[in-house]
Amino acid sequence: MAHSLTKVGVIGASGYTGEELVRLLARHPRVELAAVCSRTLAGKAVADEIPRLRGMVSPSLQFTPSSPAECAQSDVAVWFLALPHGVAAEYARPLVAAGKRVLDLSADFRLQDVVTYQKYYGHPHPAPELLAQARYVIPELQLNDDWKRASLIACPGCYPTSIQVPLIPLLRAGLLRPAPGQLVINSYSGISGAGKKAEVAYLFCERDSSVKAYGIPGHRHLAEIEEAFAAAAGQPVIVQFNPHLAPMHRGIATTIVVPAPQVTAAQVEACWQQAYAGRPFISILKSGDFPDTAHVATTNRVAFSVVADARTGNLIITSVIDNLLKGAGGQAVQNLNLMMGWEETEGLR
Amino acid sequence: MAHSLTKVGVIGASGYTGEELVRLLARHPRVELAAVCSRTLAGKAVADEIPRLRGMVSPSLQFTPSSPAECAQSDVAVWFLALPHGVAAEYARPLVAAGKRVLDLSADFRLQDVVTYQKYYGHPHPAPELLAQARYVIPELQLNDDWKRASLIACPGCYPTSIQVPLIPLLRAGLLRPAPGQLVINSYSGISGAGKKAEVAYLFCERDSSVKAYGIPGHRHLAEIEEAFAAAAGQPVIVQFNPHLAPMHRGIATTIVVPAPQVTAAQVEACWQQAYAGRPFISILKSGDFPDTAHVATTNRVAFSVVADARTGNLIITSVIDNLLKGAGGQAVQNLNLMMGWEETEGLR
Amino acid sequence: MAHSLTKVGVIGASGYTGEELVRLLARHPRVELAAVCSRTLAGKAVADEIPRLRGMVSPSLQFTPSSPAECAQSDVAVWFLALPHGVAAEYARPLVAAGKRVLDLSADFRLQDVVTYQKYYGHPHPAPELLAQARYVIPELQLNDDWKRASLIACPGCYPTSIQVPLIPLLRAGLLRPAPGQLVINSYSGISGAGKKAEVAYLFCERDSSVKAYGIPGHRHLAEIEEAFAAAAGQPVIVQFNPHLAPMHRGIATTIVVPAPQVTAAQVEACWQQAYAGRPFISILKSGDFPDTAHVATTNRVAFSVVADARTGNLIITSVIDNLLKGAGGQAVQNLNLMMGWEETEGLR
Amino acid sequence: MAHSLTKVGVIGASGYTGEELVRLLARHPRVELAAVCSRTLAGKAVADEIPRLRGMVSPSLQFTPSSPAECAQSDVAVWFLALPHGVAAEYARPLVAAGKRVLDLSADFRLQDVVTYQKYYGHPHPAPELLAQARYVIPELQLNDDWKRASLIACPGCYPTSIQVPLIPLLRAGLLRPAPGQLVINSYSGISGAGKKAEVAYLFCERDSSVKAYGIPGHRHLAEIEEAFAAAAGQPVIVQFNPHLAPMHRGIATTIVVPAPQVTAAQVEACWQQAYAGRPFISILKSGDFPDTAHVATTNRVAFSVVADARTGNLIITSVIDNLLKGAGGQAVQNLNLMMGWEETEGLR
Repeated sequence: MAHSLTKVGVIGASGYTGEELVRLLARHPRVELAAVCSRTLAGKAVADEIPRLRGMVSPSLQFTPSSPAECAQSDVAVWFLALPHGVAAEYARPLVAAGKRVLDLSADFRLQDVVTYQKYYGHPHPAPELLAQARYVIPELQLNDDWKRASLIACPGCYPTSIQVPLIPLLRAGLLRPAPGQLVINSYSGISGAGKKAEVAYLFCERDSSVKAYGIPGHRHLAEIEEAFAAAAGQPVIVQFNPHLAPMHRGIATTIVVPAPQVTAAQVEACWQQAYAGRPFISILKSGDFPDTAHVATTNRVAFSVVADARTGNLIITSVIDNLLKGAGGQAVQNLNLMMGWEETEGLR
Repeated sequence: MAHSLTKVGVIGASGYTGEELVRLLARHPRVELAAVCSRTLAGKAVADEIPRLRGMVSPSLQFTPSSPAECAQSDVAVWFLALPHGVAAEYARPLVAAGKRVLDLSADFRLQDVVTYQKYYGHPHPAPELLAQARYVIPELQLNDDWKRASLIACPGCYPTSIQVPLIPLLRAGLLRPAPGQLVINSYSGISGAGKKAEVAYLFCERDSSVKAYGIPGHRHLAEIEEAFAAAAGQPVIVQFNPHLAPMHRGIATTIVVPAPQVTAAQVEACWQQAYAGRPFISILKSGDFPDTAHVATTNRVAFSVVADARTGNLIITSVIDNLLKGAGGQAVQNLNLMMGWEETEGLR
Repeated sequence: MAHSLTKVGVIGASGYTGEELVRLLARHPRVELAAVCSRTLAGKAVADEIPRLRGMVSPSLQFTPSSPAECAQSDVAVWFLALPHGVAAEYARPLVAAGKRVLDLSADFRLQDVVTYQKYYGHPHPAPELLAQARYVIPELQLNDDWKRASLIACPGCYPTSIQVPLIPLLRAGLLRPAPGQLVINSYSGISGAGKKAEVAYLFCERDSSVKAYGIPGHRHLAEIEEAFAAAAGQPVIVQFNPHLAPMHRGIATTIVVPAPQVTAAQVEACWQQAYAGRPFISILKSGDFPDTAHVATTNRVAFSVVADARTGNLIITSVIDNLLKGAGGQAVQNLNLMMGWEETEGLR
Repeated sequence: MAHSLTKVGVIGASGYTGEELVRLLARHPRVELAAVCSRTLAGKAVADEIPRLRGMVSPSLQFTPSSPAECAQSDVAVWFLALPHGVAAEYARPLVAAGKRVLDLSADFRLQDVVTYQKYYGHPHPAPELLAQARYVIPELQLNDDWKRASLIACPGCYPTSIQVPLIPLLRAGLLRPAPGQLVINSYSGISGAGKKAEVAYLFCERDSSVKAYGIPGHRHLAEIEEAFAAAAGQPVIVQFNPHLAPMHRGIATTIVVPAPQVTAAQVEACWQQAYAGRPFISILKSGDFPDTAHVATTNRVAFSVVADARTGNLIITSVIDNLLKGAGGQAVQNLNLMMGWEETEGLR
């Protein structure tokens, strides 16, 4: 291939999201994975520490301990941040200042409202001066191409992606106008959603055979869901969001109930067809077919469908994604592709 | 132990529910498991066909092919029916006529309304003349002891048990008055809920890593949920019920959302404490603790808790059971114990 | 029941083995679970910390921080030690001195040879003066009842139980005389065998879909396997032991290959039938039937069978147990039952 | 990319192997997936019947019912046969006669010895006249390029691949000379190895938490293992092969024990390094690192390592593959790539 490669780097590569990013970028035909940074693993070979990556990355590729300043001075053009909230901003500030493109997978730039940020994350926003340059991007939901010039892209959380993709077009179209609390969202996540944390709660023996709710009623992802919904609906939308853990490695299954007695399944599907025509990662299933996390595992797709229940007057919308791909690293790479003017599916097929 | 043993039998013992019943009854200190019937396995040793029962049942115990008439003529005093709907009634009729006690785990006698039965099960009720003698029994929800004299006990389905135990006391107390469709119930079931069916859909490789909805909006268990709710509330209650499959052997996790802006978590808990004082299989967890299917697996318990969400005005109630025990065989044995005047926990600890 | 209850206690109850012991003892009809000790959980309610035990233990039962001296002075008659090696001996010494019966589930008293102990455990034996009183007991393998009077019972490890039960009778009978390294044992353990350790290696996402070997060639259980084999064979037996992890909560599956061209499957089975006649937890399967971990899960049984391969001259013996029961707590309770003169199956059915 | 695409087809695409082949070929940059044949699914859309393939294959791609003659007459140049043994030969005969290249994933052409074929498969060889043209190919084990001109490539079974890759170079080099039965191989397979069969034995609830042996001592893969070993060693090699099922979707973990007291781990590793220099799908791990099925899942790699046990005089070799890729479809595509003169990793990264 004749085109030159774009140098990219990953900061915070020791977790599951970082691992998935490294896997995707290592085989992406348009990029050179030039830096993989992790303070805790600095100096170690990537393929030794993350054996799933053996054969996908060069045996000589090592984790580097790069500081924000070092990253900013390097010749890497695009940086992916797979860091905890609060820490991501420390890297984003010098990187943006140095003219780098930043794809942030943390929560630091997902919210425009710093009051909401402080409420959900427990500390003041770490870099409010960058918010004007930051764009929160699920690419299928963008109404124009302005975002592609942003220096700082906030990649949405896993739960919000599974929720916004089916709902935002319907809110924009005015098909849904739920009163506060009437939009009920239950999501079931694979255990990788909790990250690579050495805690008893995430041991195999604790999670095997276990389904349970957690974090109700104030899970942090609620903030970005409602900010996006308000923008789409033109008015506040107060949702009930119930996250759960399910005994699987990957995947999110979301089931949404919303009253809409006047709306038919066909109207919902028509709205989706229009919003998502030609989008390669969108699978709209027939009403009565229910999406399955196993069918999208290791892909960047969102699959969803709707049932209209005449008895209750509700729409029931179910959606699935792979939380590590469309819910994290895959969507980040999709954003990269579009931002750079490449094929949307490059490196993601 | 000086007391004499009661002879019991299981009809339809080749499935997962039947297996669990045989396991419970084989070690129950008050009963003699005198007959295990299965047409397909007749003549074979129970311990050979269901190796999990090795060491629990006598090596000489065999499946018998008994007809309804033979069962009715035997000296077995109590029969458990683990049969498909429609077939169960064929056995129930002669057994009841012969003065046997019958604990039916099928759907045949769960509904008093034969019109609803036909609508949900697709054929006319097979024995409407028995409905007057039939009682639908979750024992913790019975308001008096009349049911213990019934000749025919309909044991509730797995989903309905996880749903009615937390909700019926609240409906009776008038704490909840949801408008049609406002009571939103999502349930996640282990794969054993589908039975021991040789279908591709239930293969390990299809269900591993898979969470998906199914049967929305008209799952059969809806009928018995709404019939019981109407009786508790004194008026029709139209619910949204969304069943799902989760990648585990056993267990049901149910998450219920219902608008009740005036009701506090403390009021809900007080109502439960009063309704369930002294009941050995009820675990009311503190608000903020979420029940976990793994914690009730292989037990007959129901664990549940409530969160009141001030933002939305909703109550969120989560509950868990083992679908094969409290959701099937365990509850049937609990009913047996109470019906016979034995300790409620006999054989179920 | 008219008989008085024996007071028992568990020390080190915060792990999976301790949890299983508490579950068994809490419902054992002959004992009163009078003390549950854990330094890390002292003062907390057992049912809060180990939610699987809700409804099985009294809500008021608390972990106590008891020192060895306090345990020795209490009125508890029998103590179970579910402690790390080295620590167990600290408790065993004063308990034995005070006339208590001790059932130790650690490795501290499994070996009579202190040189071997030091070699495999990396420190000098912590209480060599107690070894004369200690008995290593798989009850089905005891040739007389002397052990029942021992003050200190070393309960065997999980792997050794799955291996010794099928092999010791054959070694005693002289049916097997393998040269060094010819007896090849592969064992596959559920993840609970690694204990309740908050390490990345035991996270759900690391162990799901994973089968891998570990600890070859010098796993610690090798020491007790070979010490017992030497005693049975009357000469040293050097074995190849390969442990592995398999993606399940409970269970050990062991596959043994040993050259024995002159020995038939029938001879092996006859030897087993004789050695294990009337033993309630032994399931000898027909040659060609292979035991399955799922069939013994949550039971105290060992199931095993043999195939003689005429092509190779080898016997292939496969066995399964539940590592937390017959491989740990269940066998300890079985030892208690027999030691006290109770039914062998009391509390274990 | 300027090069023209090669037309390929898959016959027998309804099982797990066929599905994986379709997935690989649909995104292979050098081929056009021109035909996907299945008699049972003819006329149905591939993406509807195998939802995991949604978004990977064209929505208009349908299964066709093509007969052997039709396939032979088509313009498809390369055919993959994912058919049962016996049936594959019916297609291979006309396809080879018509000058097509055939990559057969069945057992029909894996053995050169028709007597052995009949013994293991229970019927006479269905096309002995084709054996002279057939080559059994694990590409890393080929000593020259002759095989690339063969019209008929027999792709090895899953177990044999995990076994031959680490052992064949050692047998060729004369490092191993095991007496009959001394080479002991235990393999653990994910459930997809059993195929997509609607049998109770492969239900989620039967296989969850289950590890068990099966098919000992005469599993069919033994035949091709021993035929290949004899060719490598220059003399018969009689092995003990013990297959097992493990509770995971994909993966094979093999553990091999062989006496070789004079051979060091370093000698083994040197032999492997020489045999596999530059091969992209081979991962030789350090002695003491054990390969893990989870680390090769969804890849075409084989990972393996050796431990020399001075106590026993044995080598212990452990290896892992993904049974559906390196053990089936991935290896077939690797063979295609090499046969066509393409990059070995094309479509397999």
